[in-house]
Amino acid sequence: MLTKKQTLFEEAINHTRVGVTITDPSEKDNPIIFANDGFHQLTGYTSEEIIGKNCRFLQGKKTSKESVNQIRSALENTERVELQLFNYKKDGTGFWNELSIDPVWIEEEQKTYFIGIQKDVTQEKEKTQMLEKTLHEIDTISTPIVPVTDNALVLPLIGNFTDKRFDSMSTRLSLYLESAEEDYIIIDLSGLYEMDTYVVSRFFQISQLASLMGKETILSGISPNLALKTAGIVDTVNKIHTFANVKSALKFINSLS
Amino acid sequence: MLTKKQTLFEEAINHTRVGVTITDPSEKDNPIIFANDGFHQLTGYTSEEIIGKNCRFLQGKKTSKESVNQIRSALENTERVELQLFNYKKDGTGFWNELSIDPVWIEEEQKTYFIGIQKDVTQEKEKTQMLEKTLHEIDTISTPIVPVTDNALVLPLIGNFTDKRFDSMSTRLSLYLESAEEDYIIIDLSGLYEMDTYVVSRFFQISQLASLMGKETILSGISPNLALKTAGIVDTVNKIHTFANVKSALKFINSLS
Repeated sequence: MLTKKQTLFEEAINHTRVGVTITDPSEKDNPIIFANDGFHQLTGYTSEEIIGKNCRFLQGKKTSKESVNQIRSALENTERVELQLFNYKKDGTGFWNELSIDPVWIEEEQKTYFIGIQKDVTQEKEKTQMLEKTLHEIDTISTPIVPVTDNALVLPLIGNFTDKRFDSMSTRLSLYLESAEEDYIIIDLSGLYEMDTYVVSRFFQISQLASLMGKETILSGISPNLALKTAGIVDTVNKIHTFANVKSALKFINSLS
Repeated sequence: MLTKKQTLFEEAINHTRVGVTITDPSEKDNPIIFANDGFHQLTGYTSEEIIGKNCRFLQGKKTSKESVNQIRSALENTERVELQLFNYKKDGTGFWNELSIDPVWIEEEQKTYFIGIQKDVTQEKEKTQMLEKTLHEIDTISTPIVPVTDNALVLPLIGNFTDKRFDSMSTRLSLYLESAEEDYIIIDLSGLYEMDTYVVSRFFQISQLASLMGKETILSGISPNLALKTAGIVDTVNKIHTFANVKSALKFINSLS
């Protein structure tokens, strides 16, 4: 029965698709006494190359010294540690290692071992970074400010409008308006995927902001259907002109001068 | 020694931070004979609740029948299977389970067990979906087409310009031009982060496309420095006018009519 369990557990460890190492801190330099298939696949090292050695062969140029100190301190105090650090495979390729090390007390032997679990999270980390970069880019490119005449600038808006995009747009616009010479801002909503009274009401907030800076806001691209729905809102701030498109808005501005 | 290893391996399995189950297909309905701490943490079930039961209690409404059939077929043929399927925790919460099942032959017992590994990849999947959606959104919102007068439309470009964005822009623009009445397209590059001769040369390609559809392209927002560098390219396609900004370009177009 013991044999069955041992073999089964060892097989199970080899199929986990994560790296598993066991080290023995009672021996000199806390060497590896076991490494599973997942560890060999992850790092490229065979058992013969690493059994009896300390795990630090995974470290390299870009491995953070702080992380290494954190691990050393945890091992010295026989404490659990979990962190992500940059490690190296046998062929020199770097990878982000989500590492946990647990001290485990084995009653029969009256001694402690360390169990290390290694997961390659490089792709996950890259995806997260790319997502952050892309979200930031959307914020930026979603607010084109285009001066089209001496007296008017156009903000053509496309896509989905979130509160985050809205805040970012308000900030950029007010920065621009500080030194702008134009008197009129045409906000063109015709490219927005969805437009409801909430979205329109947020644009009225922008018009109030612009108004404080001495500029007049004109909304273009509001469908007749939505114009009806927002009639109530428009009335309360009855200074806002709305037009079917940018051309009509510009013609209106020209007719004023 | 055997005892030490068994305990150590069992401890190691419990620290892997993934779900590990062992089932015995020689018993009726292939029941679970072992589940580790990771499995209990992932699913919320205790050992008492699941030992002796078949794993299908993880399935629910949104679990794909196709995936379930794929698993059943692999178990029947004693084959390895790895897939992602939608499963449910004890409290009813759904999660994406990256599941692998390996048949393992235990020589001493002359029989086969199945080792199942469960990883919760819900967050990863959500991040991937969000990244795809965001990249698609960037493609769309990066091509605002703004008709500003009866005779001219403006394409204000902001951010980084990749070949992918460029292709998407060409497609959208040519679709728009098919039914457009405007004769002039002003492409405003002033919002691009980086502009080199390669980027400018790609815009000349767009101008050729527009020219085939009977439209004239005007570039605005090219810095004096870049204008010098691209002088060679401009000469070869000497029909393209360039201006410092959209206002000047529009004044030029007005002066023609």
